[in-house]
Amino acid sequence: MTIHDWFDGPYPARVRIAIAEKQLESRVRFASVNLWTGEHKTPAFLAKNYSGTLPVLELNDGSLIAECTAITEYLDNLDGPPTLTGTTPFEKGTIHMMSRRAELELLDAISVYFHHATPGLGPKVELYQNPEWGMRQRDRAMRAMDYFDTLLKTRPYIAGTAFSMADITVIGAFIFAAIVKLEVPAQHVALHAWHARMQARPSVQAWNRMVEETWAAR
Amino acid sequence: MTIHDWFDGPYPARVRIAIAEKQLESRVRFASVNLWTGEHKTPAFLAKNYSGTLPVLELNDGSLIAECTAITEYLDNLDGPPTLTGTTPFEKGTIHMMSRRAELELLDAISVYFHHATPGLGPKVELYQNPEWGMRQRDRAMRAMDYFDTLLKTRPYIAGTAFSMADITVIGAFIFAAIVKLEVPAQHVALHAWHARMQARPSVQAWNRMVEETWAAR
Repeated sequence: MTIHDWFDGPYPARVRIAIAEKQLESRVRFASVNLWTGEHKTPAFLAKNYSGTLPVLELNDGSLIAECTAITEYLDNLDGPPTLTGTTPFEKGTIHMMSRRAELELLDAISVYFHHATPGLGPKVELYQNPEWGMRQRDRAMRAMDYFDTLLKTRPYIAGTAFSMADITVIGAFIFAAIVKLEVPAQHVALHAWHARMQARPSVQAWNRMVEETWAAR
Repeated sequence: MTIHDWFDGPYPARVRIAIAEKQLESRVRFASVNLWTGEHKTPAFLAKNYSGTLPVLELNDGSLIAECTAITEYLDNLDGPPTLTGTTPFEKGTIHMMSRRAELELLDAISVYFHHATPGLGPKVELYQNPEWGMRQRDRAMRAMDYFDTLLKTRPYIAGTAFSMADITVIGAFIFAAIVKLEVPAQHVALHAWHARMQARPSVQAWNRMVEETWAAR
């Protein structure tokens, strides 16, 4: 399988962390799509993913799966019972709800802020910006940090008692928040404690190390 | 189980159609949340769903599942093998990708157009509008209609050879398009032919009938 992505992108990170959680590293190769030159908006890439977003999974027969949630569903069901997307109906429902909520309220909101109310990927890529909308989404993300902090006072993981795809989505949001220098307020103690636990996972450590090493080699 | 929704809402329609496809009608009751008075933005409802959107599934033990995709995952896995969200990893990945794409590019885009570039639910509910963003999303939805028309020239259903959650998402988009009087261009022959086939499904016919009867009784 080939993952088309960019090494330190926050959405690509979600799938890379899922791959490490599933120990599928040896079955995947990565093909670089340069976000900073807008390679994801070229006709060649849009033919792979109509929405022009990263990452995209290309199977050996040429089939394409875009969208982090969809790629995670695919990978999580490859061998044996799923470990990231739930096994019971209730787990599946709850994990999908919380992962979607983390996208809608936090990760996607930070992304819109980045692309619309900051220079984003630069003027050659950001052909249309709506700064007011971007700032609104920034506010939305800040409110969501408060929400997830409150939630994590009552449960160890985003979707309940076990690590799941929903945690990975919020990890992606922290990665994007760091890129856009959006600070997670220090008073969100439960959220920070959760994040520290996530940073201790081998999958997240491997991602951090890969990003560091890639930057050092550039 | 209780579904908190509004009878003719386009997102609620997705879950009502899924319930009919799964023949779960006898196990569900509906509780009305009036979109037009902004009941979905009240503290009482926000306690059920942080995002303030419909529908929400409330289980008999009080557990809550929001987000159409998450509710569909729950319902589809209740009895026997899933029929709307796929059984193989590839089916799961493809259905989630196409349903998400149909949200992002079409249904959610129409929703943003409605809430930001038209009077939407009226001034008491639409406390902030960004008309320029709304019009951009309208354009995005029109482009997506072209995309889905092209797609449906090569396959009978949105996610491939079988009816799935992804078809239901596009059915929801057609429902919303009708509400906001966004016409699906007549030249999109494959898309219209697909929609006509969808209208023949008992689940969709039941929804149409329910909406008609509810309006007639008001």
